Amino acid sequence: MSTPSASYFSRRATVRNFKPEAPSRELLRDLMEQAMRAPTTGNMQLYSAIVTTDSQKLDTLRGAHFRQPASMAPVLVTICADVRRFERWCELSQAEPAFRNLQGLMAAILDASLFAQQLTTVAEMNGLGTCWLGTTTYNAPEIAEMLHLPSGVVPIGTLAIGYPGAQPEQCERLPLEAVVYDEEYPDHSDREILELFKAKDEFPANAKFVTENGKQTLAQVFTDIRYPKSTSDPFSKKFHDFLLAQGFEL
Amino acid sequence: MSTPSASYFSRRATVRNFKPEAPSRELLRDLMEQAMRAPTTGNMQLYSAIVTTDSQKLDTLRGAHFRQPASMAPVLVTICADVRRFERWCELSQAEPAFRNLQGLMAAILDASLFAQQLTTVAEMNGLGTCWLGTTTYNAPEIAEMLHLPSGVVPIGTLAIGYPGAQPEQCERLPLEAVVYDEEYPDHSDREILELFKAKDEFPANAKFVTENGKQTLAQVFTDIRYPKSTSDPFSKKFHDFLLAQGFEL
Repeated sequence: MSTPSASYFSRRATVRNFKPEAPSRELLRDLMEQAMRAPTTGNMQLYSAIVTTDSQKLDTLRGAHFRQPASMAPVLVTICADVRRFERWCELSQAEPAFRNLQGLMAAILDASLFAQQLTTVAEMNGLGTCWLGTTTYNAPEIAEMLHLPSGVVPIGTLAIGYPGAQPEQCERLPLEAVVYDEEYPDHSDREILELFKAKDEFPANAKFVTENGKQTLAQVFTDIRYPKSTSDPFSKKFHDFLLAQGFEL
Repeated sequence: MSTPSASYFSRRATVRNFKPEAPSRELLRDLMEQAMRAPTTGNMQLYSAIVTTDSQKLDTLRGAHFRQPASMAPVLVTICADVRRFERWCELSQAEPAFRNLQGLMAAILDASLFAQQLTTVAEMNGLGTCWLGTTTYNAPEIAEMLHLPSGVVPIGTLAIGYPGAQPEQCERLPLEAVVYDEEYPDHSDREILELFKAKDEFPANAKFVTENGKQTLAQVFTDIRYPKSTSDPFSKKFHDFLLAQGFEL
């Protein structure tokens, strides 16, 4: 079956290698306007986006992203959950807001993510490449300081944007039945789980990854090298403390 | 300036009124396949989607969404942050996962949201209408019970999907300069904040909303009726307890 949108959506891939030229401000503005039509909780738009193109600021910001290759993009857009702007409007309108709790934070995180994903799509459909930098929540306090993020504002992701330096290869995905379930969550057996991940384990680039890292299984690359407890626990505590420092009650 | 994607993205609007006929399973599968190409943290796909079309199950699920009009859609897709499947694969592959912390939860929430937003876009581009039900985090424990969501799985949003019953009207958005900032977060004055929200305050449907609810300002409709502290605080505590019950350490 082939739907009208399939040609773009089934082929898209993340870009990590960018040309040095930045897209024009006019194009960026236009993309952001379109991204702002993404759904948002109660139409409150509990998010902000900070666009960094200044070379000195980019250099500092890249440091917070461990100078990973994709952070070398000419534009970094820091996506923030933001209850502050809406709260201020409430306070100036004889209204008492209550968004500094977990529900307010969740609404703001979801608003920010939906905007970010629409920005990804719009940017890619207009010839740009993008990469989502998950390192944002690791170094949120440092990023907040660099971008002057006040209380009520939390960076949750960063979109690296630029013209693709090379056509990226698509990575593998789990089969549909691993992720989408009918009516209720299935009670998979161990054998079924291994079966669902079989293609992932055998994907050539992944198999190479295992050898290069001197591991026995692909899963060990994730648990021992990419997302080990020894760093994800301290980064979790750091982000938790940051949420409190930004004025959220959890 | 007009970019190729503008015709869809600048015009899209949320649908809350659906025809009774459900889209075919074949179409739904195809949309999900395309949505699965959305970016995901480390390609771990820390999310699941549960598709409800059974009329009895739909009825129960609608109850958890307060029977809001959009929940009457013929298809409800519950979007879940899900570290469980990936963890199980790790454990079966001689690897020790550490995703039950705040960083793991954030990665899973972002993965789930990006998938959901790509599903929104793909569905709408193929003639369907969608509405994001934010009520999911209010009644997460009830929804988890209905859908048999095990430990490690948290519903974060629900996408109502169906053929539009009526062409929806677009609601207003804040001006771009209210949401997207160059280089750093601006220090808005009170007057500037009110200026940025002026069009929202004056939008005819919003002005009507204020009168109908017997309020003085639009902001009061949000703080006193839609998101009052008296419900958002208890719903926050309920969701927090649920996250702990699903095995996350916060």
